[in-house]
Amino acid sequence: METPSSTISFGPRDDKKALEENPVFAPKFDADGLIPAMAIDAATKEPLMLAYMNEESLKMTLDLGEAVYYSRSRQEIWHKGATSGHVQKIHEIRTDCDQDALILYVEQLGAGACHTGRSTCFYRKVATAKGSDPVALGFTETDLSFDPNAVYGKKS
Amino acid sequence: METPSSTISFGPRDDKKALEENPVFAPKFDADGLIPAMAIDAATKEPLMLAYMNEESLKMTLDLGEAVYYSRSRQEIWHKGATSGHVQKIHEIRTDCDQDALILYVEQLGAGACHTGRSTCFYRKVATAKGSDPVALGFTETDLSFDPNAVYGKKS
Repeated sequence: METPSSTISFGPRDDKKALEENPVFAPKFDADGLIPAMAIDAATKEPLMLAYMNEESLKMTLDLGEAVYYSRSRQEIWHKGATSGHVQKIHEIRTDCDQDALILYVEQLGAGACHTGRSTCFYRKVATAKGSDPVALGFTETDLSFDPNAVYGKKS
Repeated sequence: METPSSTISFGPRDDKKALEENPVFAPKFDADGLIPAMAIDAATKEPLMLAYMNEESLKMTLDLGEAVYYSRSRQEIWHKGATSGHVQKIHEIRTDCDQDALILYVEQLGAGACHTGRSTCFYRKVATAKGSDPVALGFTETDLSFDPNAVYGKKS
């Protein structure tokens, strides 16, 4: 995979007011070097997934125009879709007031974002918060969009 | 503030497949005891803010039907709107495949979600990723929805 463009740099984070009001991208990476990024379908506004980026993967995202995350479980750069073909084309990147969170408005290629075979990772909602022990979930998407075994390879 | 209902409990997290496919809410709190929660306007689908909950504040959210976060900077339970009146009424709570992230579909009371005086915290987008050093942001919301000094009290 190509390395990030050396021309991409971020602003300083030494002035709280400037972080909030200036037109300079100065993302905050936490103690683990990560920033959360919510991917949202640019056309439908349906949230797809929440993942994390480190500085390198954010620069790669800006460089490629495709979502590149950092996998906390595998501890490696994760170019979304490299295995499945389910690439996320970047339409717009938003940041929040203190620049410690990102939203990616994307075009999700392929059948879905979720490794379970669904269009979105957020396929369940809290159904009964009270009177159910433990709290119950309901499915908002029951049918699979694709066969995860076919796309990712069979896992036992 | 009232304490969480003792009737609210979460499921076990010992089976990965069950976490993904069962109708049982078993949220993951990280090493700091926190889970990220993206608040989204239920009517417009506009993302409002990303904040964090600990177990106590999530149970309070389920109990009250209003968003209760955990403030990492103040290190305390944060009932959104307690100061500003900008309460977030919960319409729906979603969780993702491995249940380590939440989406709150809310009705945002008052003029906005952001302490800067804007309707959303995500009021800037990456404008020029390449050819600008550092990366430039553009404003998607320039006018303030409310006067933050009047709502939160003047801060120097």
